Amino acid sequence: MTDPLPTGATIGILGGGQLGRMLSVAAARLGLRCHVFEPGANPPAADVAHAVTTAAYEDEAALRAFAQSVDVITYEFENIPTSALDILEKIKPVRPGRKALRVSQDRLVEKAFLSELGLQTAPFAAVDDAQDLAEAIAEIGLPAILKTRRLGYDGKGQARIMTPDDAEAALADMAGQPAILEGFVDFSHEVSVIAARNEAGDVACFDPGENVHEGGILRTTTVPARLNGAQRTDAVLLAAKILNKLRYVGVMGVELFVTDKGLIVNEIAPRVHNSGHWTQQGCAIDQFEQHIRAVAGWPLGDGTRYADVVMENLIGDDMDRVPDLAKTANAAIHLYGKAEVKPGRKMGHVNRIVT
Amino acid sequence: MTDPLPTGATIGILGGGQLGRMLSVAAARLGLRCHVFEPGANPPAADVAHAVTTAAYEDEAALRAFAQSVDVITYEFENIPTSALDILEKIKPVRPGRKALRVSQDRLVEKAFLSELGLQTAPFAAVDDAQDLAEAIAEIGLPAILKTRRLGYDGKGQARIMTPDDAEAALADMAGQPAILEGFVDFSHEVSVIAARNEAGDVACFDPGENVHEGGILRTTTVPARLNGAQRTDAVLLAAKILNKLRYVGVMGVELFVTDKGLIVNEIAPRVHNSGHWTQQGCAIDQFEQHIRAVAGWPLGDGTRYADVVMENLIGDDMDRVPDLAKTANAAIHLYGKAEVKPGRKMGHVNRIVT
Repeated sequence: MTDPLPTGATIGILGGGQLGRMLSVAAARLGLRCHVFEPGANPPAADVAHAVTTAAYEDEAALRAFAQSVDVITYEFENIPTSALDILEKIKPVRPGRKALRVSQDRLVEKAFLSELGLQTAPFAAVDDAQDLAEAIAEIGLPAILKTRRLGYDGKGQARIMTPDDAEAALADMAGQPAILEGFVDFSHEVSVIAARNEAGDVACFDPGENVHEGGILRTTTVPARLNGAQRTDAVLLAAKILNKLRYVGVMGVELFVTDKGLIVNEIAPRVHNSGHWTQQGCAIDQFEQHIRAVAGWPLGDGTRYADVVMENLIGDDMDRVPDLAKTANAAIHLYGKAEVKPGRKMGHVNRIVT
Repeated sequence: MTDPLPTGATIGILGGGQLGRMLSVAAARLGLRCHVFEPGANPPAADVAHAVTTAAYEDEAALRAFAQSVDVITYEFENIPTSALDILEKIKPVRPGRKALRVSQDRLVEKAFLSELGLQTAPFAAVDDAQDLAEAIAEIGLPAILKTRRLGYDGKGQARIMTPDDAEAALADMAGQPAILEGFVDFSHEVSVIAARNEAGDVACFDPGENVHEGGILRTTTVPARLNGAQRTDAVLLAAKILNKLRYVGVMGVELFVTDKGLIVNEIAPRVHNSGHWTQQGCAIDQFEQHIRAVAGWPLGDGTRYADVVMENLIGDDMDRVPDLAKTANAAIHLYGKAEVKPGRKMGHVNRIVT
């Protein structure tokens, strides 16, 4: 166990997007500074960070200097190159640790990990070639979805297979990458649990939120979610199981499908999560501060929800609605300071308190 | 009327203390950047500001460069030298404007302004010499308190006069500065109204908070304050009167004594105010964002209070209590990142949600 980081200590954050931006603000609340490492110029987090390193993840000297200038390292996205982690974790602790990244960077490893824990997932099978795919379709049935095991493939890497005729084109979309076939899950709605664990092994969960996606992008999260008491308990217990097994330190987003046969884990994200943004308005301690507390060796905070909240993402041209939203009662606007509006780009979000 | 500042625009803040720090964070939420001007090195606001100028208020070139780099200028403290304002306001708008500063920089002008508005204040009289003081004591009675009209005199400049024998020493304490004698007010408790006004003339007030001081420093603010319906209405109306008269743009703190004879204005502060820190937890829009909205030409936000909150300042060695506070339910800690703990120094505050 390490001592809690004191006032003036520095947290290194890999990635300078909106999550890094909101982590920086949370760290400042606790008297901590942030140093952001980000390849792109003028990242959103730079506006509120104490220091910024603009360098590629392949720049070993920059990685070393960054690690030496901070007290602990965390990240806002899970696809950090292994080579960068190799360098960083020799110099300063990286939290959440390697195990969580290994599991979440590969869909197949993630599904296998969850299955071993006794948790339900969508049916899945590894697909490296056409024969694997034919066997997987035979086993899982259609419709199904073929995904590359690893992310970061130009935003592509997912193909629906509705009939056997779609199989060949779907496989071609994988461009030779190892893939995984996932069966469709018949769910009524999706919820997510934002869970935190600190070094001492304490676990805390925020109240589950109910998510609505549009075009593959999260549109809204509503708390409370439609869950009965047993489902609520199950959601928290399974999240705790995942965090404990990984000896996890930090905040994790756990996406769950609600079905007649219980909760099915869709995916886990080893970081603060878009579906946890509502906590900025509904709780004394939000998910960003909870994450900073965990990685800084602080006690976890009290994330009791004391308001009903609807979080809505502001995507692309939704920015045109900001002047009206600014006049809306009980609406807290959070903009990410991104200069350029692009279709599908997350520009901000609004938390509406429902009274 | 100016257009609302868009994403990426920059707000200049004079002063880099904790108020500037929390203003910077609020500006970031709206997609705005902050540039802090502060004579001292490593000010608290620097951790979360986009840019910092370290220069004296007498440095004309630095003031000009600062003003040219921002879109609008505001401040976190009221004792900005007139010469600096002369330079700044020729280049960019300064909000709240000159009138509010002129009134609040001089206790006599402030009291006269409030009296002209028909508001109650402590009895007062100008004191420039021993004869003035003798006449003032005869008129106001004792006990009373002699204060320099202007602040910033090494934290000194206040002397209680309990009996006529104290008069000579009290006057000597003023060190030749123009002074004001204020009579004691027999009040049951102190409350403050955090009020905002924007360019369009809209006025919004947060729910009044009840303040407790210790040794001349604010200790706690509790919402809701002990006020009946009529007092609550009076508090809001008189605050609006002050803001409208000054054509004020921004947030103002109005301290009020609650007495049998109604509300008596203690003092006004043309800036965000320590007694408004509770709004960070109890409202969708806090006082810092409300101020930024006003100076950035945005509509005022909805500051409806949806929780009971007790704000407690963490002063000096109170920092030793942070590890325990970090484990306290419903307690949101806000630290200012000040490296050195000093007696009487405001190091942070904690907002407790009362459920």
